[in-house]
Amino acid sequence: MNLASDNVVGMSRQVLDTLIAANGGGEPAYGSDSWTAKAEAMLAQVFEHEVSVFLVATGTGANALALAAMTPPWGAVFCHSESHVIDDECGAPEMFTDGAKLVGIPGVGGKFTPADLEETLSRYVPGVVKSVQPSALSISQVTEAGTLYSLDEIRALAAVAKAHRLSVHLDGARFGNAVVALGCTPAEMTWKAGVDIVSFGATKNGAMACEAVIFFDRAKAENFQYRRKRSGHTVSKGRLLGAQMVGYLENGHWLDNARHANAMAQRLSAGFASVPGARLPWPTEANEIFVVLPAAVAAALTADGIRFAPWGSQSLPAGFVIGADERFLRFVTSFATEAEQIERVLAVARGTVAMKAAE
Amino acid sequence: MNLASDNVVGMSRQVLDTLIAANGGGEPAYGSDSWTAKAEAMLAQVFEHEVSVFLVATGTGANALALAAMTPPWGAVFCHSESHVIDDECGAPEMFTDGAKLVGIPGVGGKFTPADLEETLSRYVPGVVKSVQPSALSISQVTEAGTLYSLDEIRALAAVAKAHRLSVHLDGARFGNAVVALGCTPAEMTWKAGVDIVSFGATKNGAMACEAVIFFDRAKAENFQYRRKRSGHTVSKGRLLGAQMVGYLENGHWLDNARHANAMAQRLSAGFASVPGARLPWPTEANEIFVVLPAAVAAALTADGIRFAPWGSQSLPAGFVIGADERFLRFVTSFATEAEQIERVLAVARGTVAMKAAE
Amino acid sequence: MNLASDNVVGMSRQVLDTLIAANGGGEPAYGSDSWTAKAEAMLAQVFEHEVSVFLVATGTGANALALAAMTPPWGAVFCHSESHVIDDECGAPEMFTDGAKLVGIPGVGGKFTPADLEETLSRYVPGVVKSVQPSALSISQVTEAGTLYSLDEIRALAAVAKAHRLSVHLDGARFGNAVVALGCTPAEMTWKAGVDIVSFGATKNGAMACEAVIFFDRAKAENFQYRRKRSGHTVSKGRLLGAQMVGYLENGHWLDNARHANAMAQRLSAGFASVPGARLPWPTEANEIFVVLPAAVAAALTADGIRFAPWGSQSLPAGFVIGADERFLRFVTSFATEAEQIERVLAVARGTVAMKAAE
Amino acid sequence: MNLASDNVVGMSRQVLDTLIAANGGGEPAYGSDSWTAKAEAMLAQVFEHEVSVFLVATGTGANALALAAMTPPWGAVFCHSESHVIDDECGAPEMFTDGAKLVGIPGVGGKFTPADLEETLSRYVPGVVKSVQPSALSISQVTEAGTLYSLDEIRALAAVAKAHRLSVHLDGARFGNAVVALGCTPAEMTWKAGVDIVSFGATKNGAMACEAVIFFDRAKAENFQYRRKRSGHTVSKGRLLGAQMVGYLENGHWLDNARHANAMAQRLSAGFASVPGARLPWPTEANEIFVVLPAAVAAALTADGIRFAPWGSQSLPAGFVIGADERFLRFVTSFATEAEQIERVLAVARGTVAMKAAE
Repeated sequence: MNLASDNVVGMSRQVLDTLIAANGGGEPAYGSDSWTAKAEAMLAQVFEHEVSVFLVATGTGANALALAAMTPPWGAVFCHSESHVIDDECGAPEMFTDGAKLVGIPGVGGKFTPADLEETLSRYVPGVVKSVQPSALSISQVTEAGTLYSLDEIRALAAVAKAHRLSVHLDGARFGNAVVALGCTPAEMTWKAGVDIVSFGATKNGAMACEAVIFFDRAKAENFQYRRKRSGHTVSKGRLLGAQMVGYLENGHWLDNARHANAMAQRLSAGFASVPGARLPWPTEANEIFVVLPAAVAAALTADGIRFAPWGSQSLPAGFVIGADERFLRFVTSFATEAEQIERVLAVARGTVAMKAAE
Repeated sequence: MNLASDNVVGMSRQVLDTLIAANGGGEPAYGSDSWTAKAEAMLAQVFEHEVSVFLVATGTGANALALAAMTPPWGAVFCHSESHVIDDECGAPEMFTDGAKLVGIPGVGGKFTPADLEETLSRYVPGVVKSVQPSALSISQVTEAGTLYSLDEIRALAAVAKAHRLSVHLDGARFGNAVVALGCTPAEMTWKAGVDIVSFGATKNGAMACEAVIFFDRAKAENFQYRRKRSGHTVSKGRLLGAQMVGYLENGHWLDNARHANAMAQRLSAGFASVPGARLPWPTEANEIFVVLPAAVAAALTADGIRFAPWGSQSLPAGFVIGADERFLRFVTSFATEAEQIERVLAVARGTVAMKAAE
Repeated sequence: MNLASDNVVGMSRQVLDTLIAANGGGEPAYGSDSWTAKAEAMLAQVFEHEVSVFLVATGTGANALALAAMTPPWGAVFCHSESHVIDDECGAPEMFTDGAKLVGIPGVGGKFTPADLEETLSRYVPGVVKSVQPSALSISQVTEAGTLYSLDEIRALAAVAKAHRLSVHLDGARFGNAVVALGCTPAEMTWKAGVDIVSFGATKNGAMACEAVIFFDRAKAENFQYRRKRSGHTVSKGRLLGAQMVGYLENGHWLDNARHANAMAQRLSAGFASVPGARLPWPTEANEIFVVLPAAVAAALTADGIRFAPWGSQSLPAGFVIGADERFLRFVTSFATEAEQIERVLAVARGTVAMKAAE
Repeated sequence: MNLASDNVVGMSRQVLDTLIAANGGGEPAYGSDSWTAKAEAMLAQVFEHEVSVFLVATGTGANALALAAMTPPWGAVFCHSESHVIDDECGAPEMFTDGAKLVGIPGVGGKFTPADLEETLSRYVPGVVKSVQPSALSISQVTEAGTLYSLDEIRALAAVAKAHRLSVHLDGARFGNAVVALGCTPAEMTWKAGVDIVSFGATKNGAMACEAVIFFDRAKAENFQYRRKRSGHTVSKGRLLGAQMVGYLENGHWLDNARHANAMAQRLSAGFASVPGARLPWPTEANEIFVVLPAAVAAALTADGIRFAPWGSQSLPAGFVIGADERFLRFVTSFATEAEQIERVLAVARGTVAMKAAE
C-alpha cells in the first residue's frame, strides 16, 4: 500500500476511458485538436470566466511557465519558504524566468499572513536598482503542509499584492481538493479573490500527466505559446492532454475524486488522533495528513508494506518539538484510496502502540 | 485524411494496450516505477550496449536537453541549416543550453558532408576567446528532408567531429523509420558509428508522447537528472512514459510500425512519380514524401479533404526551381496510414491532371 | 608599430585630461555623478534629440544589453553574417537576451540589402509558434569590413524593419569614423533614418573604456537600468565613464580624432593601391584597410615589427580569390596613427615588391 | 562631505599616476598587455601562490563570474542572508550562473557560524533530484555589516564546506581593509584557510574600477576567459585594468590606503561611542561604522552637508531595537578621508546632543 503521495496511482477510470476514446482518428497537432478545444471550453465554464488555457504534462512545467509570465529576470517572486516552487523543482522557476529570485516567507503550517508579506516587501523597494524588483506573489492552495487558506485569507494576500502591483499566482496542484474542502467555487478561490494565473492540477487527482496554466486576463497570455514551445512543453499529439482534461472535468468527476480523497484523509487523520502518542502539528484540511508517530509505529507500518513519506519542516508551530523516538510523516490519500487501506494503517498503528504498552 | 505529419494520429493498439495495463496499482513516482525500469532494460537490449535512459514527453524536450548536456553556454553546436533543432523548436536549444549557438550548415536534401563540416569548423577556432567554442555535432536521421545518411556517411561525419573533440548527437525523431530503411541495427546507426547521445523518438511511430534521451557513456549522464527535473520534464506518474516505451518496443512492434509507414511512403512516392507534372526534388527514403505538384492538383487534394503540409526549403538541388503554378508539399505516412488512403491521393492527383489535359 | 586594431592605443590627451580633472572630490556612485550627467546632456545635443543614455565600459556589454532590450528570448535578431554581435562576442547577445537567435545575413563587404533582409524575413513568420519571432535588426556602421552604409541604405533597411515591426539597432563601435566619412550629422545617421537604439563607441576613437547605449524613445529604456546592473555593467565610480565621454565629446574632439584616423586610412589605402600585387577587395571608407598582399610583403612587414591582423571573410566579392602566396590582412588606423607610420608601412611594402621583382 | 560609501571618491594618487604612465604607446588588446601581465605577477607574489587572475571593472561582475565558475545552474550557493551577492546585485549571480539559487543564512552582524551552515546544508541533500544541489559557500570579508571573520572562523566555515564538497568563495570587495585589520597575510586569509576563489577588490580602496577574480587552482579557471568575454567584462584596452592594479599594489600602497581608512573608521567609531544617545550594534572592525543616532543628530549632519547611508538590517543583535526617534546609519571611510572630516562629524553630533540636552 502506497500512501507516500497522490502521484503513485494511475488514471481514474473516467480519465482513462476518455483517453481511449480520443485515441482514434486524425487530429491536428500541437494543441489544435478538438479535445484540447473542448477542454478549454470546459475550463471556461468551470471558472465562469473567459480564460486562456495552456495544457502541459507536469506541475513543475506549469508553475515555472506561469511564474515566467509574471516576472522579468530582475524580478522577485514572493512565496512560502517551503513552497513547491522554491524547494521542490530543482530551480525550474529560476531557469524559466531567466534568473528571477524566489523570496521565501516563513510561516507555520505552510501559510503566511498579509502582515508577513508586507514586512518582506518592505525590504524590496521598487526602483532601487541594486535590488530585484517585486513582481509576483505565488501562493499554494492546498499548501505544502496540506493546509488551506480561507477565501478571506486569499483575498487579503492578493489585496496586499495588488497594492504593490504584484501579479498573483495560485499553485493549484491540488486545486480540486482545496475547492471541495472549502465548499466554494473555482471562481471564488481564484479571480474573484484576486488571483491572476492558476496552475490547475489534474495529475494528482485522477489524470496521468495533465496540468493547465490558466490566465483570466487573456491579454497577458499573448506570448505564452512561445514560452511553452521553447521549453519543450508543447505536446505534439495534443489530444493526450486535451482528452485527460475533458475526462477529468466531465460531470464533475474531478470534484468527486477530490471529495473521496479528502474523506479518506479525514478518516485517517481522525484515526491517528485516537492513537496514543500520535500528534498532528496542524489540522488535516485536504488530502494530506502530517503526523508525528512513535518510531515503533513508523517501523511497524513499513514492515507491513505501507509506504509513506518521511518529512521535515521549518514550519512547525512554536514549541512543537519532535523527539528522538518519534517520526514526522506525511500520508497522502487519493481518488484511489480505499477505506480498507485506511483501516489497515490504523490497525497497525493501534496494534503497535498496544503491544508497546504491554511490554 | 490527414497526411500533414506523423503526429496527427494517436497511439498504435499495442502501445495503448500497454498503457492500459500499466494504469492500475501503485508505482513509485518520478521515473522510479517498474515500467520505466523495464523500458530502460529493453533499450539496452535494442542498442546492444549499456545505456543511461531518460524518458520525456516531447521531442523538443529531448533534443534541447541532449544538446545542453553536450555544450557549455559559450559553445557552438553544428547542425544542418534546416534541422529541427535550429528551425522548429522556437529556440529551445538556446534556452536549455543557456545561450549556446547553433551553427547551421547548408546542404541539399537536408544533408551535409564531412567537407562541409570541416569548412564550417575552420571558422570556429578553439581557444579564440571572442568566438564560441566548437562543442557538438547534431545530425538528424531521418533528416528534415526525409532523406537518410548512410552508415558510411554517419561514420565519416562523426570522425570529423571526434577529430575536433565534438560530441555527436543524433536526432532520431524518426529513428525507427531510418533503421528499417537502412536495414541496419540500432547499434550500427549510433554508437558503432560514433554517436554519443540519441534522441530516440517513439511518438511519431506509435506512441502518444514518449521520447528517450539515450547516453552510451553513462558517466556523461551524471547530471542529466537535474537538467530534466529543472526543465519540468520529469513526469511524476512516470509509468505514462515507461509503459508507452515498453509497448512500443515489445516484440519489435516499433520496427513493424516503421516498416509499414515506409512502405506506404514508397507507394505514394512511386505513384507521384507517374503523375505528369509531379516532381520529387530528392528520393523518398523513409516515411516522408516531398513533392512538387501542379497547383491545380494541390487544390484538388485540399478540396477532397486531404491534408498535407505546404513546404519551403533552402536545400533544393541546384537548378531545381518551383514555378508559380506549382506547389511544394510534404506528405507523411505513419503506422496508421492505409493503402486505400494512398490510392485516394493518387487518384485525385491523376484525375486532376487528366482533367486539366483535357481542357 | 601596431596597426592590428584601434584598441591598441591608450586615451587621447583630451580624454585623459578630463579624467584627471574628474578624479578629485566626492561624487555620488553608480552613475549619479555630475560627469555622467554632463555626458548625457552633451549626447542629447550631439544627437539633437532627447535621449536615455547608459554608459558602460565595453562594446560587447553595450551591444548585448542593447539587443536584450529589443528582443524576447524567443526572438530573432537579424544582422550581417560576419557582424561583431554574431561572430566576435563569444555569445554575449545570446547570454543577455536569454537565448534569442541571431540570424546572419550574408553580403559582400559586410553589408546586406533591403532585398536580402526581406528574403530572410520571409523564413521567419510572426505567429508561427515553432519559429523564433522576428524582433530586431542590427546593422553595423562602420561594418565589420570597414565599409559604410549610405544614409539612403540605412533608411531603406530601417524601412523594411519597421514594416515588419522590428526595432532597429546600430552598432556604432566606430560611430565617429562613420559620421565623419559620410559628412552627415549623428541625427541623420540614426533616428532620422529609423534607428531606435545606438551603441555609441568612444573607446576605439580616443577613450579608454567607454561606450554609450542610447535610446531615442525614452519609454523603451524603462527597465534598462536593471539590465545593466544585473549584468555587472553599472560602474560604481561612474565618473570614470562620465569623464571619458565628456572629454571625448567636448569641442568636437571625437570628430577631430575620427577625421585624423580616416585620413590616415585613406593614405595607407591609396598607397597600397599603387603597390604592385596588392589588391583591395572593397574600398576603404573609414579607418580600416582590408588588403590582399603578396605573402613576401606580409612577412617583411612582420619582420619590420609592424603588427596587423590576418583576416578571413565569407564576404569577398564574387570571383575575388586569394592565392596561396597571398595574405588577406586588416590594418586599422586611429587618432594616434602618425603619417610616418603609414609611410613606413608603404616603404617596406614597396621595397619588398621591388626586391622580389629584381630577383 | 560624503561618507555614504567608499566609492564616492576617485583614484588615489599612485593609482592615477600609474594609469597616466600606462596610457602611451601601443599594447595588445583584451588583457594581453604588459600591465595586465605585471599585475598578475604581482598578485601571485601578494598571495604567495600561483594564481589565475581575471581583471574586471566591477565588483558585481567579479562576484557573479566567480560564482558562475563554482556552481551549475541547478546548484545552491550558501551565503549570508544580507550579503552583497544576494541583496545588492539585482540578481547578477542568478544571471551569470544561469539560474542557480542563492540560499541566505541569517546571522547577527553579517556573520554566520559553522553550525548555521551545517543546519542549512541539512535541508539540501545531494542527490535528491527535486532539490538544488549544494555547490558553493560564499563569505564576505569584510562583511556587509562591516565586521570580520577571524582566521579561525574562516577555516571552520571552509572546513564545513569542504566536508560537503562545496567550493569556497570570498567576496573581498574590501579585502585590503580586512587583511590590515586582522594583521594577517593575504595567503592566510584565503588559500591557507580553505578559500578557492577570491573577488579581490581594488575599486573601493584606491582604484577607479578594478577588481580581480583570483583562482588558486588554475585548472578551475580553464573556461573563465569565455565566461568573462561573453558577459562583456573583457575590457579591450586592458591596460586600464592592469595599470590600476599595478598602481594599487606597488610598494604596499593598497595596505597603506586600507590602514588609513580603518584608522579613520576607528576614530569615528570611538567618537560616536562617546556621544550620548549613540549606539553601535556591533563593533567597528574595518572601515565601516554602523551606528544608531538620535534622529536630531542625523538631521543636523544632513543639514551640515554630511552624507551617510540610511541603513536597515535583519542582522541586529537580539533585543537591539531602534526607536522611532532614532536613525540607523552607515558611515564609510576611505583612503581619502581626512581627520578633519571625522572631527567635523563628531562636532556636529556632539553639538546637537548638547543643544537638545539644553532645551
